[in-house]
Amino acid sequence: MGKRILVIGGVAAGATAAAKARRTDETAEITILEKNGYVSFANCGIPYYIGNVIKSRNSLLLQNAKSLKKRYNIDVFTHTEAIRIDPDKKIVFAKNNSDENLTFQYDKLILCNGAKTIIPPIDGISEIDYFTVRSIEDMDSIKDFIEEHKPESACVIGAGYIGIETSEALMHCGLEVTVVEALPHILPTFSPEVSLKIYEKMVSCGITLKTETKIVKAYKQDNKIILLSEKGESFTTDLLIIATGVKPDIELAKTAGLEIGSVGGVRVNSRMETSVADIYAAGDLVEKKDIITGNYILAPLAGPANREGRVAGCNAAGGNLEYKGTLRTAIVSFENACCAQTGLSYKEAIKFGYDAHFTYTEDPNHVEYYPDPKYIFIKLIFDKKTGKILGAEASGENGVERRIDIISTAIFAGLTVYELGEIDFCYSPPYGAAKDPVNISGLVATNFINSSNLITPQQFLEIYSNELQILDVRTRIEFKSYRVKNAINIYINDLRESLEELNKNKPVYIYCAVGYRGYVATKLLRNYGFDAYNISGGIEAIKRVAKIKNMEVIDAGNS
Amino acid sequence: MGKRILVIGGVAAGATAAAKARRTDETAEITILEKNGYVSFANCGIPYYIGNVIKSRNSLLLQNAKSLKKRYNIDVFTHTEAIRIDPDKKIVFAKNNSDENLTFQYDKLILCNGAKTIIPPIDGISEIDYFTVRSIEDMDSIKDFIEEHKPESACVIGAGYIGIETSEALMHCGLEVTVVEALPHILPTFSPEVSLKIYEKMVSCGITLKTETKIVKAYKQDNKIILLSEKGESFTTDLLIIATGVKPDIELAKTAGLEIGSVGGVRVNSRMETSVADIYAAGDLVEKKDIITGNYILAPLAGPANREGRVAGCNAAGGNLEYKGTLRTAIVSFENACCAQTGLSYKEAIKFGYDAHFTYTEDPNHVEYYPDPKYIFIKLIFDKKTGKILGAEASGENGVERRIDIISTAIFAGLTVYELGEIDFCYSPPYGAAKDPVNISGLVATNFINSSNLITPQQFLEIYSNELQILDVRTRIEFKSYRVKNAINIYINDLRESLEELNKNKPVYIYCAVGYRGYVATKLLRNYGFDAYNISGGIEAIKRVAKIKNMEVIDAGNS
Repeated sequence: MGKRILVIGGVAAGATAAAKARRTDETAEITILEKNGYVSFANCGIPYYIGNVIKSRNSLLLQNAKSLKKRYNIDVFTHTEAIRIDPDKKIVFAKNNSDENLTFQYDKLILCNGAKTIIPPIDGISEIDYFTVRSIEDMDSIKDFIEEHKPESACVIGAGYIGIETSEALMHCGLEVTVVEALPHILPTFSPEVSLKIYEKMVSCGITLKTETKIVKAYKQDNKIILLSEKGESFTTDLLIIATGVKPDIELAKTAGLEIGSVGGVRVNSRMETSVADIYAAGDLVEKKDIITGNYILAPLAGPANREGRVAGCNAAGGNLEYKGTLRTAIVSFENACCAQTGLSYKEAIKFGYDAHFTYTEDPNHVEYYPDPKYIFIKLIFDKKTGKILGAEASGENGVERRIDIISTAIFAGLTVYELGEIDFCYSPPYGAAKDPVNISGLVATNFINSSNLITPQQFLEIYSNELQILDVRTRIEFKSYRVKNAINIYINDLRESLEELNKNKPVYIYCAVGYRGYVATKLLRNYGFDAYNISGGIEAIKRVAKIKNMEVIDAGNS
Repeated sequence: MGKRILVIGGVAAGATAAAKARRTDETAEITILEKNGYVSFANCGIPYYIGNVIKSRNSLLLQNAKSLKKRYNIDVFTHTEAIRIDPDKKIVFAKNNSDENLTFQYDKLILCNGAKTIIPPIDGISEIDYFTVRSIEDMDSIKDFIEEHKPESACVIGAGYIGIETSEALMHCGLEVTVVEALPHILPTFSPEVSLKIYEKMVSCGITLKTETKIVKAYKQDNKIILLSEKGESFTTDLLIIATGVKPDIELAKTAGLEIGSVGGVRVNSRMETSVADIYAAGDLVEKKDIITGNYILAPLAGPANREGRVAGCNAAGGNLEYKGTLRTAIVSFENACCAQTGLSYKEAIKFGYDAHFTYTEDPNHVEYYPDPKYIFIKLIFDKKTGKILGAEASGENGVERRIDIISTAIFAGLTVYELGEIDFCYSPPYGAAKDPVNISGLVATNFINSSNLITPQQFLEIYSNELQILDVRTRIEFKSYRVKNAINIYINDLRESLEELNKNKPVYIYCAVGYRGYVATKLLRNYGFDAYNISGGIEAIKRVAKIKNMEVIDAGNS
């Protein structure tokens, strides 16, 4: 008789762990306990099925109990919730939906029971029929509710990844959608100047978006749900979704005495072993290592969950794999607006003691002269001492995923911003440029490190006043359409013959559209002895940052 | 008075070099000599302008003599061909289109006069009005010819990057297009099983495609051009394009006694210095270092040309930059079919002494359950001893550029196939999968290295016979639509209970659609003591390779 491998939780990490265990050891007795009714389903697809983008419910059910039995000889118990683990006797106590108590003996146990939705402390919320977006059951309930009750409005609490994807889905269903977020900006893991792309898209699509709005009370009135915010605003809705994030579901792990780490997940080593012998854990339940800092973090993402499940399953079955950790590379979109990120944010990088700086660039996904170029805004975060790339965020419509994946690979490999300027990427007019946006972000960061010519829009706005000498080197037409207040306009091509228009005794703060002409102008003026600074990312970045800071520094319209 | 920097050639490398020299030294006297009428134009856009995809001719002219003067204070002499260099006196002798002899004194010279189209030795070709696709003048001539003569047919000699892009353009102009290629396959830098994607697309779009067809004679007859092949075939066309590749235009370099390297380009060091003092060279003219092998190679690509121009311009002006070399990352498309590559081909890797192997994978650009997934076929080339990634080729419709760019970055950084399986990439249903196609290619290659379970379709086809025990583990429906001849079908999910149908005393060669189910089946059978092998890339890869080898091993239709 083979080794008994018991897996608790049968979605991403669990199903992967069980299948990998089988491939590693044909003789093992492998069992999955899943508290819900489905295993190995595509939970990331849920919002898209709700929004009718994915038409087939069946396509989300990648495997089921029967197919796992047939393909992998895995015994699946659905509707079976593990209640307690006795690690000494190696027994798991469970309960099924017929209220039967079941016990499962194991030789190796793999905990993959994931995370649970955080329900914020809203007065009266327990009396309300709200929905979360995590399981197939959740999905079916939302679909059924929409079909039966024909709601006209929906409110989504939480503007993270799931909240945004779900708001898009509900909009596709024809509902009037309101999204409320307690924090000052949507997508809290992103810098607001980057997430602005999705913010503006949501607003332009008619989503009512309320940030800095903390819901404190909820009640029912005439078949409607009324939500009250801390500031006294009220929202009336037919359908309420709570998507305020998840946290590791550690109750079961605690019954086995597993070490819980400092950020609230089950602590594992690189072999996905917990602190207790013969118990492994993987997926949203566990703390992962941040590859850059080596710190433990939470990152409820499908990619890491899959990789961890694979490692846990292999090792539980007698193999030997290791999991290095994650860069938390992730992407989110609303209609055609998209934001992606990898590695550390600037704030995190500062917090962890790096000599962290960032640059902005904004370049087209393919050469401008090929039809329909789409600009990609990149915030590159790096260490000034070593040049090491620490993180990146990007927004745009096409090709954002490609650039963040490249930078994710570069960070994984420990590359510097200098090297980012040198890598060859695919180029033909429909697909890129001789200097890819990633190359340019590397070159600009290199320039930042090697000179003191480049300042961020944040630095510029901090010192912004009427006294500043601000130079716009774009064309007259560009200048007329909008510009920084108090800027003077000398087109870059006329600059050399117009030097006397500038005051050499004052610093000159230069911008163009996205940074390149400003860079050329800065070099030129410095060569003539001016104290010149280029503003990273040009007026497009200044606009974003000013909007976030609520500063009125942009003059629009003809002059 | 500043240093005199003279640049010969004003397109990609030359214009970049001159602009970088100016940013480095404002006082230098910078001059460009360009034998044609245009500088700093987008030569990669030429086919797309011919094909009316790019509508504005002006958009291809990124800078002109006037704007380079105004923005960079660079003096541009167009229609001025450098004839001879005297490196001792530091003089360049030139001739302009008024047949005037001009001399230019320099302190630093940068040679960027590029490459020239190879005209194959075709009897009578000098009597024919054919076109090449390299300069704005070439482009205008082709456009004018089409407008004036309304040709009905065109023949393109050469099925490389430019030949294929030009054939697409001429098809868009409504012409009947024939492409002839002397070599056995289109896109000679690609493996034929990868370039097959474009081959089939071209054929399905009505292009007449003739490989292994060497044109040996050309003549005019009744306003038509007649081409005769070595095998005696004749082609009649109204418009003839020659796109049989380029070679460094080294005649001028020779007059200065510059060292020409072993592969026929000007030899430079990492600072882009030639063998003669104060002469730099950059772009298609020079030999580049292959980053992987350290060997000198030719790579007439825009990315390297730009980077080299930047380094040469900076150093000529007193700066200090270095150029490491290239991975020759490149992409080509025909309509929506696309092929891209980076690093070494398998053949090159073998030639350079690596323990080179390759795997095939074919996975969707995003999860299958999200609408309209497009499969990406990846050939990953790696060293079995070290696990180092050496190269990759891919084909598909969407996301090919992203995956090759990731692998280009990974090769640049010296990563192994093991690591390729571990990197986090952007995933949400519209943008990818928890295991990206790149992760999967890394995992499959890792499996190849760690086991002897995986064989290539080439290895399988070499031993293919009626005697072989071949197992198709796809569903009955998949099997019925097409299959390898003599294969038996046991669906993967039924395999465990059907072991007795297999002969344990003979090896089992297993395939599925693209490799994953075959992998699971191979593990399963090996666990039961079978000598089982999975065929890399599944029947989709077998089909490609069999087609290339002209082997009839696929049974199609119902059985």
